[in-house]
Amino acid sequence: MNMTTRVSRLRGDRVTLAHGGGGRAMRDLIEEVFTDVFRPPGREDQARLTSEALQEAGAQLAFTTDGYVVTPVEFPGGDIGKLAVCGTVNDLAVGGARPLWLSASFIIEEGCEIALLRRIAATMAAEAEAAGVRIVTGDTKVVEKGGCDTLFVTTSGVGAIPPGRDIAAVNIRPGDVAIVNGVLGDHGATILAARGDLALSTPIESDCAALGHLMEDVIAAAPGMRAARDLTRGGLASALNEMAAEAGVTVELSDEALPIRPEVRGMCEILGLDPLYLANEGRAVLFVPEAQAEAALAAMRARPEGEGAAVVGRAVTAGRIPVVTKTAFGGTRIVDMLVGEQLPRIC
Amino acid sequence: MNMTTRVSRLRGDRVTLAHGGGGRAMRDLIEEVFTDVFRPPGREDQARLTSEALQEAGAQLAFTTDGYVVTPVEFPGGDIGKLAVCGTVNDLAVGGARPLWLSASFIIEEGCEIALLRRIAATMAAEAEAAGVRIVTGDTKVVEKGGCDTLFVTTSGVGAIPPGRDIAAVNIRPGDVAIVNGVLGDHGATILAARGDLALSTPIESDCAALGHLMEDVIAAAPGMRAARDLTRGGLASALNEMAAEAGVTVELSDEALPIRPEVRGMCEILGLDPLYLANEGRAVLFVPEAQAEAALAAMRARPEGEGAAVVGRAVTAGRIPVVTKTAFGGTRIVDMLVGEQLPRIC
Repeated sequence: MNMTTRVSRLRGDRVTLAHGGGGRAMRDLIEEVFTDVFRPPGREDQARLTSEALQEAGAQLAFTTDGYVVTPVEFPGGDIGKLAVCGTVNDLAVGGARPLWLSASFIIEEGCEIALLRRIAATMAAEAEAAGVRIVTGDTKVVEKGGCDTLFVTTSGVGAIPPGRDIAAVNIRPGDVAIVNGVLGDHGATILAARGDLALSTPIESDCAALGHLMEDVIAAAPGMRAARDLTRGGLASALNEMAAEAGVTVELSDEALPIRPEVRGMCEILGLDPLYLANEGRAVLFVPEAQAEAALAAMRARPEGEGAAVVGRAVTAGRIPVVTKTAFGGTRIVDMLVGEQLPRIC
Repeated sequence: MNMTTRVSRLRGDRVTLAHGGGGRAMRDLIEEVFTDVFRPPGREDQARLTSEALQEAGAQLAFTTDGYVVTPVEFPGGDIGKLAVCGTVNDLAVGGARPLWLSASFIIEEGCEIALLRRIAATMAAEAEAAGVRIVTGDTKVVEKGGCDTLFVTTSGVGAIPPGRDIAAVNIRPGDVAIVNGVLGDHGATILAARGDLALSTPIESDCAALGHLMEDVIAAAPGMRAARDLTRGGLASALNEMAAEAGVTVELSDEALPIRPEVRGMCEILGLDPLYLANEGRAVLFVPEAQAEAALAAMRARPEGEGAAVVGRAVTAGRIPVVTKTAFGGTRIVDMLVGEQLPRIC
């Protein structure tokens, strides 16, 4: 172990175009800010990896990618780096894959504070470690002032789906129970408040969380799990509309059962938003056979990221409308797919 | 086969913020512009894949990523999509991996022309097919006008390194021969001219090309190949400095042997640039044992992307300077690593 404190070779406290030029300044930035924190294997421009989980007969490789452009890049409960790690881990996990490796690509605006990059890299390393994945390869580009807004991060993920596991929306059957792992809309409400142009002050934090461990626990407890989706842009409503269409079922939600904080409900009422469309970054909806619903709920509630788990509805024989909500007064409301844009750059 | 012409559901000819919102407009954009062209497998948010090449005992998985921010996004010889596919294929190939799958993530500025996105998606699909890889998963984000510059693309790649193959800079030995697959600096010179603010008009096109097939042919002809790097930002000079440092050798170039077009040389003289630092996007430097150099050259010249292949120098016992050039007059020039920024947003 090297106990000496290394002297930084980075000059100045802001990123310049030279940090993207392919030369010494770029190498210094990448090594000090990213490589020293992520500790990727090897020195070539590619990570070289092996995994017993992938080599097992019948295993599948899962591969996914997401770009992150959230503004502001730091917000209560997280930052763009935490979103990037958790979002890609979740895209792997909700399909039944065990997340293995991430790549991380940064597009940085000239003038961005190096201290900000260090904070975000530290968040990413911590989140990756907690989620049991490694950030193994990356890239850095710098664009001139005004060429992008502070920082964009794109992560891709590789995971292993164990032999015989098949979690997909097409497997949903009428009678299956829909469960979410916690209150809805906290991430969307947090970003909205953090932008500051609404003079809203709320104690809410982003729900941003990695769901890999939770998914493994629930699959162990409810091995008949049909399908899962993480709820990001477009919220629960958009995810359910996609799933219902793919499965050929209708999903009936119970308005009373939807777990939404009073503060989020209140903010939505003031602004004319529907919490079912608010973005989440640590929430998923899972469909399980009715007989396994209690076991799934118990497994979720045993983890911090699932302590607010709740049954929100069920799949029924396909009707004319893919997703509906039953109100407390016996009425039915159509939950359509989001048509336009509720809130730009939420993730 | 569906012989009807599908009516586009996209309204208007430019991207709006609604196309990034997670709802119906986003789904329509993704399906029409990207999914219909890339034809990824499955409907879940992750690609699920298997490959015999990866399951072979002793095989390694290669994983790499790169972001592309080139301006202008279309230029003689290519566009940002071609760069994104070729660049990631090349990062896999120069490490000895057979490229299998790519992800593609798009960050789009509000107001971007949908026709531009369609052209770029078509280029990417064609380049991927020619390179023998599939674009299997992707993501789209839209940021407000001014939040980014037209379009950024980030690709990640997964490939398979066959058992026993070990291509890495640390393997380079004194006596090894350095070969490049064609003329240097065309990409950098093309982008410089395409920006138009220098009133330069040149007949040069970008060298952008995928090198997967070439690398396989060369490895078959010269199975002792030590190392290879693609020459991107920072050019041949930066790649050789990195490799020399990792290998613990000095690289001696021969000034006369460097293949550079007279037009590129002329442009560099006018602008005070050094062609050794100009970016390339379809060029690599390979180190092979001297006994296999002729076979490697012949294999490269048999392919269009290697027809300009040339020996440019050799590795020698490490001296004080990592990379030097011998001039025609018997002098020696230091080829240092690029310190600052030669040309922003070249890739």
